[in-house]
Amino acid sequence: MLPRKLLAEFIGTALLLATVVGSGIMGVALSAGNDGIALLANAAATAGVLYVLIVVLGPVSGAHFNPVVTLAMRLRGELDSVTAAAYVVVQVVAAIAGVLLAHAMFDQPLLQPGTHVRTGASQWLSEGVATFGLLFTILLGIRQRPAAIPALVASYIFAAYWFTASTSFANPAVTLARSLTQTFAGIRPDDVSGFVLAQLAGAVLAIGAASLLAEKDARVTG
Amino acid sequence: MLPRKLLAEFIGTALLLATVVGSGIMGVALSAGNDGIALLANAAATAGVLYVLIVVLGPVSGAHFNPVVTLAMRLRGELDSVTAAAYVVVQVVAAIAGVLLAHAMFDQPLLQPGTHVRTGASQWLSEGVATFGLLFTILLGIRQRPAAIPALVASYIFAAYWFTASTSFANPAVTLARSLTQTFAGIRPDDVSGFVLAQLAGAVLAIGAASLLAEKDARVTG
Amino acid sequence: MLPRKLLAEFIGTALLLATVVGSGIMGVALSAGNDGIALLANAAATAGVLYVLIVVLGPVSGAHFNPVVTLAMRLRGELDSVTAAAYVVVQVVAAIAGVLLAHAMFDQPLLQPGTHVRTGASQWLSEGVATFGLLFTILLGIRQRPAAIPALVASYIFAAYWFTASTSFANPAVTLARSLTQTFAGIRPDDVSGFVLAQLAGAVLAIGAASLLAEKDARVTG
Amino acid sequence: MLPRKLLAEFIGTALLLATVVGSGIMGVALSAGNDGIALLANAAATAGVLYVLIVVLGPVSGAHFNPVVTLAMRLRGELDSVTAAAYVVVQVVAAIAGVLLAHAMFDQPLLQPGTHVRTGASQWLSEGVATFGLLFTILLGIRQRPAAIPALVASYIFAAYWFTASTSFANPAVTLARSLTQTFAGIRPDDVSGFVLAQLAGAVLAIGAASLLAEKDARVTG
Repeated sequence: MLPRKLLAEFIGTALLLATVVGSGIMGVALSAGNDGIALLANAAATAGVLYVLIVVLGPVSGAHFNPVVTLAMRLRGELDSVTAAAYVVVQVVAAIAGVLLAHAMFDQPLLQPGTHVRTGASQWLSEGVATFGLLFTILLGIRQRPAAIPALVASYIFAAYWFTASTSFANPAVTLARSLTQTFAGIRPDDVSGFVLAQLAGAVLAIGAASLLAEKDARVTG
Repeated sequence: MLPRKLLAEFIGTALLLATVVGSGIMGVALSAGNDGIALLANAAATAGVLYVLIVVLGPVSGAHFNPVVTLAMRLRGELDSVTAAAYVVVQVVAAIAGVLLAHAMFDQPLLQPGTHVRTGASQWLSEGVATFGLLFTILLGIRQRPAAIPALVASYIFAAYWFTASTSFANPAVTLARSLTQTFAGIRPDDVSGFVLAQLAGAVLAIGAASLLAEKDARVTG
Repeated sequence: MLPRKLLAEFIGTALLLATVVGSGIMGVALSAGNDGIALLANAAATAGVLYVLIVVLGPVSGAHFNPVVTLAMRLRGELDSVTAAAYVVVQVVAAIAGVLLAHAMFDQPLLQPGTHVRTGASQWLSEGVATFGLLFTILLGIRQRPAAIPALVASYIFAAYWFTASTSFANPAVTLARSLTQTFAGIRPDDVSGFVLAQLAGAVLAIGAASLLAEKDARVTG
Repeated sequence: MLPRKLLAEFIGTALLLATVVGSGIMGVALSAGNDGIALLANAAATAGVLYVLIVVLGPVSGAHFNPVVTLAMRLRGELDSVTAAAYVVVQVVAAIAGVLLAHAMFDQPLLQPGTHVRTGASQWLSEGVATFGLLFTILLGIRQRPAAIPALVASYIFAAYWFTASTSFANPAVTLARSLTQTFAGIRPDDVSGFVLAQLAGAVLAIGAASLLAEKDARVTG
């Protein structure tokens, strides 16, 4: 089964990144300097593809596409350590492949180390909050309304693109891969580690908060 | 159970306000003076996060995040007076925390008393209509299709941001907290009391209208 | 029961028109001359409120809000002629009340006969197509997936605002009421009758097409 | 039954094309040179109408509206070769009719051979990826959550308008028909064959990938 799960993680993560980067390029190309329109398109396209990928790949691999999600699921015992490690490796490789695919579709240089500066306390706080919210959404959503997870993650990410100063990367594999583009969605390689640490901190906080809220006696609805 | 419910109200209300204020700041920053784009982003981000928070926290606390909702639920006998009072206190504190969090994420001064003038009969009428619609949606929605409450509230609030002249605060805790920001979503402290009175009037009207429409023999569908 | 149904039609139609006209005013006010942004907001707000109103009022009155829908339901035998006539009267009065409410919320003159010229074969064709599509959606949707009617109507109207040259009034009561505003959503009173005739033609065509497609042996899914 | 299925394919494909082309014309007309707003409207209107048409016509004809979808369904044995051929003929005729209808609604010359250059490796790669994603979504979606197919296709196409450089035609009948318009959604007739070949390649790849992922033991969820 593992190869099938890894293939699902690969296709899903690659299409997610192709969407994040590609819709950013298209948004900037069409929006005549109005980055608000570009981010609307970027956020809505990302939400749309997340909904699709989680519905169709969730039953195969869990549709993590994100090392911090894999980490949280490992802690819940939903997969073993070897599988989790394989997931993370595949996610990173696939994320990079997705960025290259977006570059190829838009006739851009395949390799272009990111130049978009994203650093400082405000950015790190933003990534911490963004990742807290994502994990909080997933961990409680699984409990309260599992069939809605695809819509929940899509809605959350749309909102988080807008309410955080960092536009909510919230995913270490995505962050690393986005350091390979100079387009709208890019990040400077030097700034990756700060983002990833902030994401891990947010994830840990979310696991704690979700655990406090998801006591056994919680009433579960539709 | 109460501490868990209050924690849910706290996290939900704080994330709601961080989204309302944060997406407003981002919208203005990116939209090159076109406030229409900023309000589209602000409304869609708010709707997205409302959908998420009501799905995942509804089963814990009811996901009120709003003193007039708590008041209406108290009148329906869904919680006692002490719990209702605790909810309102937590909502106000959390709303303020959410505003401060948005300021911190966007590297803004944490304390900035609102300067956006929102007063006069048209604004009050707008808040009355906005709150009437919100309570009408919730009270009838609970009866007709309770599983759809998260989507109903999100859809309603998106629309109400646009069809009312006040952009639909429709929430006394939100109104108070938004008097602490000078950004897109702000309101002058002097104008808070007029908004809150209008909101209460709209809520009372909605409770009456919903009661007229929700007679026992109403056919209930899917 | 009739008074309750009529109250539902009244509140629903009035809120629908307040949204159509109000969000148009807000859209133009904020969009710095870019009517594309105004129509995006107008269409999305209308879709949002339609979804809400049909979910919460559908089980009470059927949530017609539209004389051609009432006519189609009369032909299906879902209500008698007296009730249908009462529905139409209430829809027209409520639509006008909704326009006045929008004017009041935006501090505009309450009475302002429409000046927006909308006439000619292309406009009439647009209204015919728009109404055909609306009735086609409702009549087949009731058969194929009745619980989705609110989302179907909302999605259809969003699209029809954009794909028809008339922005899809598709509703005689709405058309009449919109002849009372000079704002974004308005229409010149002289142009109302052409729109209404085109809407009736589109509705008749849709009733025929839906009847051809909805034969008894059609497989019905989720 | 076949005539009824073909009528469903005809009406669905024609309304789809009227929406694609019509909303493109409206988008450009209103957006003051900002094509980003035009594409947002174009993508959202297309998604809205796809959701509607697949819900209401899916149970009648399968709601293909697309020769590569018909091809994939033929390979799954869901229809015979004669029916499949009839579907494709009707889809092409209906797509052209839809383009003419859009031109008529917007008072444009009915016949206007496309002038929009869309050629080269990046465009072909884009169409391949776009069609891969569409078929992948449909083939896995049918297995994992068939009731969600309308929302899945709509969400995917919204995203693909933005993340591919070609704005995702992903449909040979649509491509051919769009070579008959000089408006926003058009394509030069000379460029049609390259698009169609790329779409077929993407479809074949998706059938393979979906087959690898959809093994019998896959857990199926809600």
